Amino acid sequence: MTTTKIYITPEAPAEVFSAAKSVGADLVSSPAEASGLVWFGHSPASLAEVLHPGVRWVQLPSAGVEGWLSSGVLVAHPSVVFTSATGSYADQVAEHALALMLSLARQVPALARTSTWEWVSSASLYGAVVGVVGAGGIGQELIRLLAPFRCRVLAVRRSGVPVSGASETLTPDALDRVLAESDFVVIGAPATSETQHLIGARELALMQPHAYLVNIARGSLIDTTALVAALAAGSIAGAGLDVTDPEPLPDGHPLWSEPRALITPHSANPTHMLYPALARRVADNITHFTAGKPLLGVVDPSRGY
Amino acid sequence: MTTTKIYITPEAPAEVFSAAKSVGADLVSSPAEASGLVWFGHSPASLAEVLHPGVRWVQLPSAGVEGWLSSGVLVAHPSVVFTSATGSYADQVAEHALALMLSLARQVPALARTSTWEWVSSASLYGAVVGVVGAGGIGQELIRLLAPFRCRVLAVRRSGVPVSGASETLTPDALDRVLAESDFVVIGAPATSETQHLIGARELALMQPHAYLVNIARGSLIDTTALVAALAAGSIAGAGLDVTDPEPLPDGHPLWSEPRALITPHSANPTHMLYPALARRVADNITHFTAGKPLLGVVDPSRGY
Repeated sequence: MTTTKIYITPEAPAEVFSAAKSVGADLVSSPAEASGLVWFGHSPASLAEVLHPGVRWVQLPSAGVEGWLSSGVLVAHPSVVFTSATGSYADQVAEHALALMLSLARQVPALARTSTWEWVSSASLYGAVVGVVGAGGIGQELIRLLAPFRCRVLAVRRSGVPVSGASETLTPDALDRVLAESDFVVIGAPATSETQHLIGARELALMQPHAYLVNIARGSLIDTTALVAALAAGSIAGAGLDVTDPEPLPDGHPLWSEPRALITPHSANPTHMLYPALARRVADNITHFTAGKPLLGVVDPSRGY
Repeated sequence: MTTTKIYITPEAPAEVFSAAKSVGADLVSSPAEASGLVWFGHSPASLAEVLHPGVRWVQLPSAGVEGWLSSGVLVAHPSVVFTSATGSYADQVAEHALALMLSLARQVPALARTSTWEWVSSASLYGAVVGVVGAGGIGQELIRLLAPFRCRVLAVRRSGVPVSGASETLTPDALDRVLAESDFVVIGAPATSETQHLIGARELALMQPHAYLVNIARGSLIDTTALVAALAAGSIAGAGLDVTDPEPLPDGHPLWSEPRALITPHSANPTHMLYPALARRVADNITHFTAGKPLLGVVDPSRGY
């Protein structure tokens, strides 16, 4: 019988330890004794230091893993299965995308900044065309939240496999059409070398002047300089960004003073929701690992997420 | 055969004239010739001047009719059926209520006002307890929009007749319990003498410190002085107000500088949506009036809406 001793880094929140115990995990106090690691740190170097031939699985704490991939620690350990938290935070992040869409449509940023009663016109999600670029867990949940608004959802995903609830599912080569037709464009794709600056000056120019851009994925998917220019020129109506490039967005950056921009500080995932979601994912994966079943959120270095 | 000549005030938007013509209305150029009036003005005195014994129906332009009722013009003409636009704007206003709820939950007002990257924690609608006080057209549509979030909806309506999608439907005598249990309280009841200051100091004190109050109905339902005090004391987490008392909210009013308040200038109903919605209602009521069928949105002066 294989050993399934699990080591959880001490920095992990209490919820993760409780969840692991609740599924009967055999928790050990040193990574050297473990065959599975639940890693709550963000330093690939620290992880590399403790990896040993007995480790067969590492659970990473975040949904996006571009930092782990670029560090080389994953490709250096091909016999280890690395899992991300991808999908486990989808509900919260999809809700944040909807919050950004509705805030922009209803002019909340401008209204929050004013102190005088003056009519503003606003937009609606009812019947709107919504481009969901990257229809993974977050995009699929967003489509579910949008269902009551009877939107025409244009989902873009690499595989092209139809997304439930989308009016059309398209492959990335149809991105131009999606940008041109959408009233709202929501970026939910992973950060990979292929998606770097997916939205640049050319893509922004394809969008309609009344259209809004929302990014709840990773800052690198949008060319920030091009976005600043598009917002200043009013060639799109506004942008809601939970992620930026650079991130954190430095004080004095032009996006801070752009009236058409709404910045939230990578806060899509409320802390009190994040830990329970991560704990559930850890418990599920410990159960699967112990039973020898396929793990959730397996990272594929060749795909980039 | 009864005469069904219709007069539409010249101030009405073009959409209303087009819609009336599309259902074959016999439009006349003077109220004196008409048996039905589609009134786009807001002056009860101007309406009273042109009412004559041949008028059997008047379509009013707004959903709330407290100004028309207090003017006495309705009770002075008991043989005339007055209809409001109630219900025809429900979608847009419900969407605005959701926009205010999500903006407050995700700290959008504070984030729109800052220009530095600093983490904020936020709340979620998933599984939240939502008190919908006044479950007419707007409240019912809001419940439909909330369905994907699996909220526990406590609907309050005078009749107590169960509301579709609500976890519980309660009569107004259970308001205290709804206020105490809700994470979000949304006010959607009509403005009547009974609902004046429905939410005062005592009611605000029943709410939880993390709870948010949203008003998309009429300003008079909330005691503004009590609300200002509750927000300043942090006894509730925040308020999203599309309507205020007084309205418009004057410059320098304490609500403008209250960080926990988000004011939108009675903009729940975007103009480009309002006119088509009103036009559809007018067309429906002209059709019903001509056919002798019951009209939509009949005002009952004894009920107050």
